[in-house]
Amino acid sequence: MHFKIEKKLENCLGRVGVITTAHGVIQTPAFVPVGTKASVKALTPEQARDLGAEVILANTYHLYLQPGDELVAKAGGLHKFMNWNSPIITDSGGFQVFSLGAAYGKQVSKITKITDSSLLIPERFDDSGAPRLAKIGQDGVSFKSHLDGSIHYITPEKSIQIQHNLGADIIFAFDECTSPAEDFRYQTEALERTHNWAKRSLEEHDKLNKKNNIALFGIVQGGRDETLRKKSANFLKSLDFDGFGIGGSFAKEDMQTAVRWVNEILPEEKPRHLLGIGEPEDLFMGIENGVDLFDCVAPTRNARNGSLYTKNGKINIMNAKYKNDFNAVEENCKCYLCANYSRAYLAHLFHGKEILAATLASIHNLYFIINLVKKIRQSILDDNFFEFKKEFLKGYLKS
Amino acid sequence: MHFKIEKKLENCLGRVGVITTAHGVIQTPAFVPVGTKASVKALTPEQARDLGAEVILANTYHLYLQPGDELVAKAGGLHKFMNWNSPIITDSGGFQVFSLGAAYGKQVSKITKITDSSLLIPERFDDSGAPRLAKIGQDGVSFKSHLDGSIHYITPEKSIQIQHNLGADIIFAFDECTSPAEDFRYQTEALERTHNWAKRSLEEHDKLNKKNNIALFGIVQGGRDETLRKKSANFLKSLDFDGFGIGGSFAKEDMQTAVRWVNEILPEEKPRHLLGIGEPEDLFMGIENGVDLFDCVAPTRNARNGSLYTKNGKINIMNAKYKNDFNAVEENCKCYLCANYSRAYLAHLFHGKEILAATLASIHNLYFIINLVKKIRQSILDDNFFEFKKEFLKGYLKS
Repeated sequence: MHFKIEKKLENCLGRVGVITTAHGVIQTPAFVPVGTKASVKALTPEQARDLGAEVILANTYHLYLQPGDELVAKAGGLHKFMNWNSPIITDSGGFQVFSLGAAYGKQVSKITKITDSSLLIPERFDDSGAPRLAKIGQDGVSFKSHLDGSIHYITPEKSIQIQHNLGADIIFAFDECTSPAEDFRYQTEALERTHNWAKRSLEEHDKLNKKNNIALFGIVQGGRDETLRKKSANFLKSLDFDGFGIGGSFAKEDMQTAVRWVNEILPEEKPRHLLGIGEPEDLFMGIENGVDLFDCVAPTRNARNGSLYTKNGKINIMNAKYKNDFNAVEENCKCYLCANYSRAYLAHLFHGKEILAATLASIHNLYFIINLVKKIRQSILDDNFFEFKKEFLKGYLKS
Repeated sequence: MHFKIEKKLENCLGRVGVITTAHGVIQTPAFVPVGTKASVKALTPEQARDLGAEVILANTYHLYLQPGDELVAKAGGLHKFMNWNSPIITDSGGFQVFSLGAAYGKQVSKITKITDSSLLIPERFDDSGAPRLAKIGQDGVSFKSHLDGSIHYITPEKSIQIQHNLGADIIFAFDECTSPAEDFRYQTEALERTHNWAKRSLEEHDKLNKKNNIALFGIVQGGRDETLRKKSANFLKSLDFDGFGIGGSFAKEDMQTAVRWVNEILPEEKPRHLLGIGEPEDLFMGIENGVDLFDCVAPTRNARNGSLYTKNGKINIMNAKYKNDFNAVEENCKCYLCANYSRAYLAHLFHGKEILAATLASIHNLYFIINLVKKIRQSILDDNFFEFKKEFLKGYLKS
């Protein structure tokens, strides 16, 4: 993997670059659609490519459980298995192990309202108050499958082995993603574990990569605490990673500071991926603060719920007024949905529970987000990032 | 609409032809994919076109209820509404009124085992034994919506008005589709109604078609009785229809005789559509007996259930053995699924409940059936229909 910075945004951390992988280039900043189970939900690879996706992210946790990483390896790797010949990223499985596995039955989301009392119960305790994440050892994590309740044990070495079997272009070190509701002492312990696992991930990767050609990113954690975030960035910087992920279950108001603290420390010449974030306002924030890659399920998940992005904010196509609306979802949008269908037709498909509804809405939302990041990229090249940001957010956030 | 016969099959009723409509040509015999609610389920129009579909059939009953034919007219008609610029057929709504509407809560299928005792209860009685289809008058049928139980009243005139609002290229006269379990007296009464409705449909169509350019097909009914079938064909032949549908809820063993009785009488120079039929063995039978058009939900419905057509019969991709099978669903198949994905990947998508599973399986099944009819067409042109039929069915039916 090779990363080249083409232009920097003045007086801040933002930059435009190009990542080159064995499966093609990614022009950064870039939004990475999520294909959790080796499929960007409701889309063929050609549809994803045609709407502008240059890279996708698949989830290690899900693919390890089903169909299994060894099966994917036998199939010739993820690219061949899922017919996607452009770059692929896999995450480490860490986030899902904690949100779907260990915290079985509870949801940990990437953006958390820490004022929500239900989240003030640390996820390391189960409903009875008994320690739940006691199953985290220094060596790894045992967790229950969200599919069938079976018990699995993942170590950093195992995560890297799984990811090498899957065969993405960029993979991640195994980490522990804590809730922002955890106390400082727990955050500190968890961070030490994440750093220890980072080193072990790197060692395992170096062994396996003698015959492979995969880039490994380390993940910065540390929650909302400035000291821990900076400590984490400094530690990871000292290791020979090809790039970095910025992890965490963020309270929205903490995200910007955490990203800035980290990116002021991380080496400029290596790419940075803000994990699991993708709302328009967060994309501007991240890019301004030096983020190169974003992934998020929001565009496709919102699409399947009938929530569509427009430059004036999201609309819900199930609203009765759209039944008779023969305009495009978004005027002047060049996506396949807007070029060929009306709001009335999309509303009809949703009311009729037609599968095509999910496909068309996903195409629009991914096009909107990917294209927004491309426009932001161009605005940096054209020296008008701040004007574009102001203009876009004025329309988008007013609703 | 124009129909030209290009070649006839010797010593039987089969023929190869071309139907020309305002939205393009249909090479016959042809299989017509069903897009019930103005969407071929799980496919974009481009995907349907790319797999070989030249024409689709949408259901009047469903579109009348949702989103409503007047809304479709305001949208500029079905072609524009659903972004399908090739020929469209709509049915009359008759079959669905009886199977989904009047017989609310019961299913009437196109192929019936008349030995199945549950079907020996005539659908004109409800569960309490009270007459149900008493709501059929000489004028029309009142029925309950399967969506919300609301009461609607459809006359032949209304069916034709709805279909003109939808704006397909080929539409059908309103008819009553009886169960094969009905007695001779009821079949006779129902047939008289269908014939009366055929005349009224034609009259209404002639009025509306002064400003439109739509072809109207009459529907031959008569159940499994030779006298009634022949009577129906002779009656409809006397009217100025552009083509004919052959309707009925068939017991499989009755289908061939019914089709032959009818097509020996119907005028050779007009096209014939066998409604709701599409299994491979039935396609050979129908074509040999002079059918030009077929439609059926089976390929797409089977696909969504994981049942895939192959030249050796159907396979169910959910079978455990396919999890590790890296071959294509069908060797040498040129469809998008088989060209790019393994059985293992498709099985993984089905096990993971991924929407793409429905899309890929539907592409394969529709390609298989449409392409089978194209091969049959070619075999007639090449004078080897009977050899091709024998060879194909030997492989397909042995499973």
